[in-house]
Amino acid sequence: MDIYSNLEKVRSEKPLVHHITNWVTIYDCAQIVKSFGASPVMAHAVSEAADMTSIASALVLNIGTLTDDVIEAMVKSGKAANAKGIPVVLDVCGAGATSYRDQMCARLISEIKITVIKGNASEICKIAGRNVQTKGVDSGNASDSISELAEIAKELSVSKTCVTVITGKDDIVTDGTTTFIISNGTPMMAQVVGTGCMAASVIGTFAAAGGDIAEAAVSGLVCYEIAAELAASTAKGPVDFKNTLLDKVSVLIKNDIESRVKVSAAG
Amino acid sequence: MDIYSNLEKVRSEKPLVHHITNWVTIYDCAQIVKSFGASPVMAHAVSEAADMTSIASALVLNIGTLTDDVIEAMVKSGKAANAKGIPVVLDVCGAGATSYRDQMCARLISEIKITVIKGNASEICKIAGRNVQTKGVDSGNASDSISELAEIAKELSVSKTCVTVITGKDDIVTDGTTTFIISNGTPMMAQVVGTGCMAASVIGTFAAAGGDIAEAAVSGLVCYEIAAELAASTAKGPVDFKNTLLDKVSVLIKNDIESRVKVSAAG
Amino acid sequence: MDIYSNLEKVRSEKPLVHHITNWVTIYDCAQIVKSFGASPVMAHAVSEAADMTSIASALVLNIGTLTDDVIEAMVKSGKAANAKGIPVVLDVCGAGATSYRDQMCARLISEIKITVIKGNASEICKIAGRNVQTKGVDSGNASDSISELAEIAKELSVSKTCVTVITGKDDIVTDGTTTFIISNGTPMMAQVVGTGCMAASVIGTFAAAGGDIAEAAVSGLVCYEIAAELAASTAKGPVDFKNTLLDKVSVLIKNDIESRVKVSAAG
Repeated sequence: MDIYSNLEKVRSEKPLVHHITNWVTIYDCAQIVKSFGASPVMAHAVSEAADMTSIASALVLNIGTLTDDVIEAMVKSGKAANAKGIPVVLDVCGAGATSYRDQMCARLISEIKITVIKGNASEICKIAGRNVQTKGVDSGNASDSISELAEIAKELSVSKTCVTVITGKDDIVTDGTTTFIISNGTPMMAQVVGTGCMAASVIGTFAAAGGDIAEAAVSGLVCYEIAAELAASTAKGPVDFKNTLLDKVSVLIKNDIESRVKVSAAG
Repeated sequence: MDIYSNLEKVRSEKPLVHHITNWVTIYDCAQIVKSFGASPVMAHAVSEAADMTSIASALVLNIGTLTDDVIEAMVKSGKAANAKGIPVVLDVCGAGATSYRDQMCARLISEIKITVIKGNASEICKIAGRNVQTKGVDSGNASDSISELAEIAKELSVSKTCVTVITGKDDIVTDGTTTFIISNGTPMMAQVVGTGCMAASVIGTFAAAGGDIAEAAVSGLVCYEIAAELAASTAKGPVDFKNTLLDKVSVLIKNDIESRVKVSAAG
Repeated sequence: MDIYSNLEKVRSEKPLVHHITNWVTIYDCAQIVKSFGASPVMAHAVSEAADMTSIASALVLNIGTLTDDVIEAMVKSGKAANAKGIPVVLDVCGAGATSYRDQMCARLISEIKITVIKGNASEICKIAGRNVQTKGVDSGNASDSISELAEIAKELSVSKTCVTVITGKDDIVTDGTTTFIISNGTPMMAQVVGTGCMAASVIGTFAAAGGDIAEAAVSGLVCYEIAAELAASTAKGPVDFKNTLLDKVSVLIKNDIESRVKVSAAG
């Protein structure tokens, strides 16, 4: 997998990435796409969401602050994305926290062909039907055994015919057959609001540029987390870290990636 | 009052603080909670707000960009918070600016048992039935006599059985019996959008960790405003100030507080 | 035109600028107004929008994430602004991207007397009835001939009796009779989310302080773009640039403007 080439493809193609996301991290989701050199657009009106999707190269859905209207827009946009054949990334933000959220996830996954399901350990375990409690939007008491989580992710990928991404200290990316473990990143990512949401936007951005979806997800996450490592080395605190991360993304060079990438194949 | 112990309690318990807040400062409200080491969650769907509240340790309501749907969610969440016995902080952001806003404040205060009512001088005067005009969300022509404002706050606390917080150059915190004046902070707080909203989130975060509510409010505001003083000493402008404030909060040490705290008892 | 005097007028009058805007850049729109020394307020409830407008000195409408409810609030606020005789700035953000967006722009322009229509080249071309495709909220394949764009802007100004502003490498400001070209700014403005939205807020802020509308628009844009030039000279990346821009605005001095202003009259 040539991660730097995939980054270069994003920068040269500048794909339009349509988001229907939450109101907390909506700016950061847009800026991370822009920092990667691509073009973000956010539009959640039921009356226009599908039309906006139809001019985009990927759709990113994030249920962080979902409401009934926003879910309607997501369903319409998801169907438009499916019709056009562009990837749909679903960030199951907060799955397990309320039954409404779980029902809406189930609805999205049943009505839309999702290309990538992404969450933290407790969220993905919940989606996979494991019995966990999510603490709001932060990860709860899911197993922290990577091999066990990888099995859960693989099963979910097979049953939903999608790529599954579990973010955490190590990230798991699997299409059900091939599984990658990414060990880049920094503990500072857990101290700032929005790093999880931005990860989904990054996956959407790299998927928008084409190619194998699991490779796109791995490439995007590696670039993002290497930028995070670079940012952490000088950060004065969580917000300085986040702002620097958004800036480092825009100046990543080949050597940053080649000297730092930590991806291993599993299972 | 041991302010540093109260900060340590927040950091060790990491309470979940549910917000239904405005779309302008929603990120900063989430991050200030995170910077204090606690866990923010924002969820405003009428269909899930009460369920989210029921897994939280405090509820923060901010009417900055309220709409009818959001008010419904606030009422449901407030009742869930009351049923669970967790504190409810109401930031009466912009009270006095429009009659709709005043009616919605009245509705929230009548349908929910509010634990802390927080606003600037003109907002609290309006809620207390004084005749003032609020200039949007900035403080208007309310009296600037601290003793007069403290009397108004005490009366409101007695009539609503709540703690009242008036933020400004000096802050007033009163449960109707004991009144504290906080003289920490910096004029830079008035130059940046969101410092008032974050103050309500801070009060909610400290109240979520348990103990006397007025003490929690004082402890939170003192920590927050000392972080602001530290940030102001190097700030290159309002946004740099706000970002640094959010970072300083995460590294406050005992000596920062003990060497700078300015709290006096009044009335 | 005395640009610095116009800036001083904003700083001394501190006008209240009511926004109904999008959820992506809402914070930055509020903060740029605050950084200029004025007072922002954001309120989009159909039940209070008009009342909030009636205490403001200008109204800024931005359709970036419009929905049916928000459009209703915009129409009511726009009519209140017209009744009060305060300026209305419409940022036609994303015009041309979907037919819904175009219909809503047409509705706003037909039901409200708009004082300033502002957009990038492809958005304004679309509003003016030219055949272009907008790529989400970024500028599409509109002509990049300044003289041709100026003609389109002048025609729009005459037909709608408004000031038209086209932002880009060079900005065009015209009331249909007098046309100004502003050559300040920096390419970094295109690398960060929100610079276009903030430009509309700046125009609204300067228009709120009174005087000739085209002059206000030119004055605001020149100050904003000179702050951008100052920020770009030290910026470590797009987010650092944006944060510094927001801070530089608050400390602009007369010499910054006089030594850097690049405005020429055209047509």
